Order: sequence, then structure tokens, then C-alpha cells
Amino acid sequence: MTTFITGVAGFVGANLAASLLARGERVVGFDNLCRGARHNLAALLKHPKFGFEVVDLSDLNAYRIAFRAVHTRDPVVHVWHLAANSDIPAGVADPNVDLRDTFMTTFNTLILMRELGVKSIAFASSSAVYGDHGDRVLSEDSGPLFPISNYGAMKLASEGAISAALESHLEHAFLFRFPNVIGVPATHGAIYDFVRKLRATPDRLEVLGDGTQQKCYLHVEDLVEAMLFIQDRASERLACYNIGAHDEGVTVRFIAEQVVAAVAPGARIAFGRGKRGWVGDVPRFAYSVDRLAALGWRPRLSSAEAVRKAIAQVAVQEVVL
Amino acid sequence: MTTFITGVAGFVGANLAASLLARGERVVGFDNLCRGARHNLAALLKHPKFGFEVVDLSDLNAYRIAFRAVHTRDPVVHVWHLAANSDIPAGVADPNVDLRDTFMTTFNTLILMRELGVKSIAFASSSAVYGDHGDRVLSEDSGPLFPISNYGAMKLASEGAISAALESHLEHAFLFRFPNVIGVPATHGAIYDFVRKLRATPDRLEVLGDGTQQKCYLHVEDLVEAMLFIQDRASERLACYNIGAHDEGVTVRFIAEQVVAAVAPGARIAFGRGKRGWVGDVPRFAYSVDRLAALGWRPRLSSAEAVRKAIAQVAVQEVVL
Repeated sequence: MTTFITGVAGFVGANLAASLLARGERVVGFDNLCRGARHNLAALLKHPKFGFEVVDLSDLNAYRIAFRAVHTRDPVVHVWHLAANSDIPAGVADPNVDLRDTFMTTFNTLILMRELGVKSIAFASSSAVYGDHGDRVLSEDSGPLFPISNYGAMKLASEGAISAALESHLEHAFLFRFPNVIGVPATHGAIYDFVRKLRATPDRLEVLGDGTQQKCYLHVEDLVEAMLFIQDRASERLACYNIGAHDEGVTVRFIAEQVVAAVAPGARIAFGRGKRGWVGDVPRFAYSVDRLAALGWRPRLSSAEAVRKAIAQVAVQEVVL
Repeated sequence: MTTFITGVAGFVGANLAASLLARGERVVGFDNLCRGARHNLAALLKHPKFGFEVVDLSDLNAYRIAFRAVHTRDPVVHVWHLAANSDIPAGVADPNVDLRDTFMTTFNTLILMRELGVKSIAFASSSAVYGDHGDRVLSEDSGPLFPISNYGAMKLASEGAISAALESHLEHAFLFRFPNVIGVPATHGAIYDFVRKLRATPDRLEVLGDGTQQKCYLHVEDLVEAMLFIQDRASERLACYNIGAHDEGVTVRFIAEQVVAAVAPGARIAFGRGKRGWVGDVPRFAYSVDRLAALGWRPRLSSAEAVRKAIAQVAVQEVVL
């Protein structure tokens, strides 16, 4: 019996695969290595219960051949669908990016699960499905869902397709609405950008927006733990959970100051104007993790602690790579 | 200045085009004539301010060439995007139908609006975006949105893509969440099916489900009037409105009895079992039209009146075709 992960060479995929292998599961993962990277899997590739193939999931026929081969060798009982575009501005500039890499990968995954009779899926959804609701606290049942980026729109579209598939061929689905997730191997995001900028110009750090944007951050180790916890405990056929920290989050200013302190002490921070850093960015939101708390899970790290840990990790990663 | 309608040869499109022409607007419409039909446009094609072309909107290049030509002759200022799969069971059997005909037509429409700088869209969304919430009253802000059909999922995906486009290149968007709409030219739905069945076997009518499914119905003439009313009055940049009758709806049993009375008096009605007629059907829901009422609009016909009027119209249509 195999657990299958799409986007396994990405940030979350590599961490998830390591945790599943540590639990003794057999894991096979696909990745097109467009945003994921083979070196993220360096340690895992030596594991006897881990399999990896380079497959572009937006190519249904290639995906079908590869998935069938895996399933024939050792039946896939559960799919973790993490493959997606993770670069929100890229999808604003060209909607085809999120269509192809986020939505069509979901659509094709569902087509193949139907063909092969695989009945359980976990999907990496996002707080971006909600859109901009100001300070309103957003629970899993909140509406309306008016995403302000194609990233959010294609995550929402994927949720809808999975929800519909539950009515026809799936038995269980988990929709994990991610907050901002940080840690390593980082490939984008504020911490990663700030560290890179300070490596280039150690005396100053330019920040988009006025630095007052406030968000919750979860460390990827907490995220993976939460997902496995929900999968073990939740009884709903369609289990939709916000995953996040139990706090008010931290501001971009806080992150900038922490990165400066860790990487280039004394550098001047130059803030921009306005609340939004870029089109598609939700400037501030609060989201309820009460459902997850009621299930019995709490993160180990607060937003501030997660930021500090991730900065320390990304700073080292940057030196190494 | 041109108003552009996708899916113009369909049930709603043909009625909308007639109303817009009656208001003096210049109207150009595209349709792939897959579910729409040229004879639905017979009267309109003689109108000097109406233009029609057979274009498959899921073919982006063909769509681009045709849309550019229209826009170059006479700038398009507003798009009514009605083209979609309207056959819910067809999309349950093959998810590609709703992907191609509902979602990709929306996606391509947004791509071309961005290329050509057309900034206003009205979209024929659906109550199917909500999914099955039992007797809970659903307003435009209700969540979660877990559609139970690919039809609903691809309408939801389209709403999300439009919402995201408002953040980057659109100025105004109208999301009209349709109830069950009836009238002529009918191509599917309970009334159409019952009339057809009774023409074939005038002594008996077989009904899927136990007949207790209860839904609101709106006559297409009321629907078109409501959309134009909202477009004239609503001030929101993203104007999302449930459109429907102000009543509790009618049951399938009521429709069956009315069709029998009109078409084949005395025929025996044989009900099936269970609440749902087919996969993807939401057995019963109530949806709030308070927002539309607050704007000042009420339908002329109740659900029951709309059903009776549509039966009379469909019965005649069936004889003629």
C-alpha cells in the first residue's frame, strides 16, 4: 500500500514525505521539478520505501502512464495533492500559470483517481480562497469566497472539483487551508526575499508596502504535524480545516527587523507605501483555527517563534546553496 | 458601442439578446451551437443591431480572432458571459464537459477582456455553487461553498477567476446566481423531460426520485428583467446576487401533476425512491433573495405561476419542433 504525493520535491512535499517515511509508510512522489528541486529530496532518495519520478501532472497522458505504473506495483490508497504554483505574483502576471500548475493538476489527479479507484485525497488549499475581508475572523464556513488572486481562485476551483468528486467517486477528502508557511527548503516568501536582498546589499533592506501588513505564520514542521493529526482524527467525509497559529500574527516590519538582526545587523530598513506589497496579496486577515483546536491540536511555535526559527534556517540554507 | 453575449443561442442568451435589442443596444453574440441552436435566434437575426457568429469559446485562438474583429468594428463595453454546459448529469459523467464549456470559456473570456481592455462582465453563475445545505437559507455571503456537481464546481471556479480578475484588470463584475430557470426555448429540465416523456407514453409518467424535492423556479423573462435591473442599480464593484422567486418553491410532484394536466390528462404518475433524482442534484434548498429585494426588484411570477406558464410554452414548443 502506497501513499502518493504530488509536488513531492517542493517545500511542503519534501517535509511531508520525510514525516510519512518516519511513520513507516511507503511513499511515492511525482514532481515536474519546475519549482521543486531534486536536492530537496537528497536524504529521502536513499530511503528504501521512497520512490520518486519526474512527471508533469498537467500532461494527463504522461501522468496516467506513471500513476498506473505506481498503482499496479503497489496500490495507492491515499493521495496528497500538493503540486501547485506557489508564486502568487507569477499567476497575477499570467493566469495560465495557476490554471496549469494548480487547477489542471488537481483536475487530472481526480480524473486518474476515478479511473484507478483511489478514493481518498488530501489537498493543500489556502487561506487565499477567502479573499480580502479586512479584520473579520474567517472560519472554514465563512463566505463569500472571492479570492483576489488567480492563485486563490485556482485553489478554490480545486476545492470545488474535489467537493464534486466526493459526490461521484471519492470517499474521503481533506481540504487543508494553509496559512503562510515558513521553514526550509524555502523558495519564496518574505523571509527568503529579505535574506537574499541583504546578502546583495548588506547595508539596507527595501520592503514593499509600509510594513504594517500582519499575518499568521506557521512553521512547516507544525503544518505537517497538523495535517497528519487531522487525517488521523477527523471523522468528516469532507474535512476542511484552517491550519494556523493561535495568535494575532506578526507584521512585515517584525520580519524585516528579525532578518536584519540575524543576517546583517545595523542595516537600514526602507519601507514603501500602502498596505499591500503586490497585487494579489491580502494585506491583513485573521483566521479562525478553532475547529483544529477543538480536534485537539495546537502548534508548537507561535507566529513569532516560527519566523525566528525559519530565519535561522533560511540564513543557513542561503549560505549553503 | 457593443454589448457582447457568449452563449447567445442558448435558452437565457436568446431571451437576453431580445431584451437588450428592445432597449436599443447593439448586440453581438457568439455560440458554438452545441447546446444553443440557430433557430432560437430566428427573429433576432433580422434585427439590424444584432450580430451573430458561430465560435467555440474553448478554442482561445479562434475566440481571439473573432472577438478582436467585433471589438475593432465597434468597441465592446460589456460582456455577458452565459456560455456554459447546462446539462448537469453530462458533467457528472464526464468532468471534461464542465471544464471545457463552463470554466475554460470563462477563463478565455477573461484573457481576451484583459488583452482588449474590456472591463465589465456579467456572469451567469448558479445556486449550484453552494452545494447541499439542507434547509438552511443561503444568502450570497453564505459558506462554505462545496458544490456537489462539476457543474457547480466550474461555476464556482468561474466566480473565483472573475473575482481575481477584478483585482488586476476588470472594473465591474456581476455574479448572478441563477435558480432553476424555466421557459422557452427549453432544452432540458424537469418540465421539458416530462413533456417529452408524455408525448412518447401518454398514459404514464415516470419520475426520478420520490417527487418531494422542492425548488424555486423563475421564469426566464423574470430572470432577464432581474439581471438588467441589477446592472442598472447595483453600485458594488463585485455585485453578487441570488436571483429567484420570493416563495418556498414547488415540488417535483407539483410539476409532474401540472404537466400531466396540461399535456396528457389522466396519465398515471409513477414516482421513484429517494430524494435525489440524479447525482449532482441538490434535493432541496432555500435561498435568500433579500439582497435583490432590498434593491427594489420582485419577480412577476411565483414559482408555481412560472411553472404553469413554462409548461404551456414548452407544450407548444414540443408540438412545433
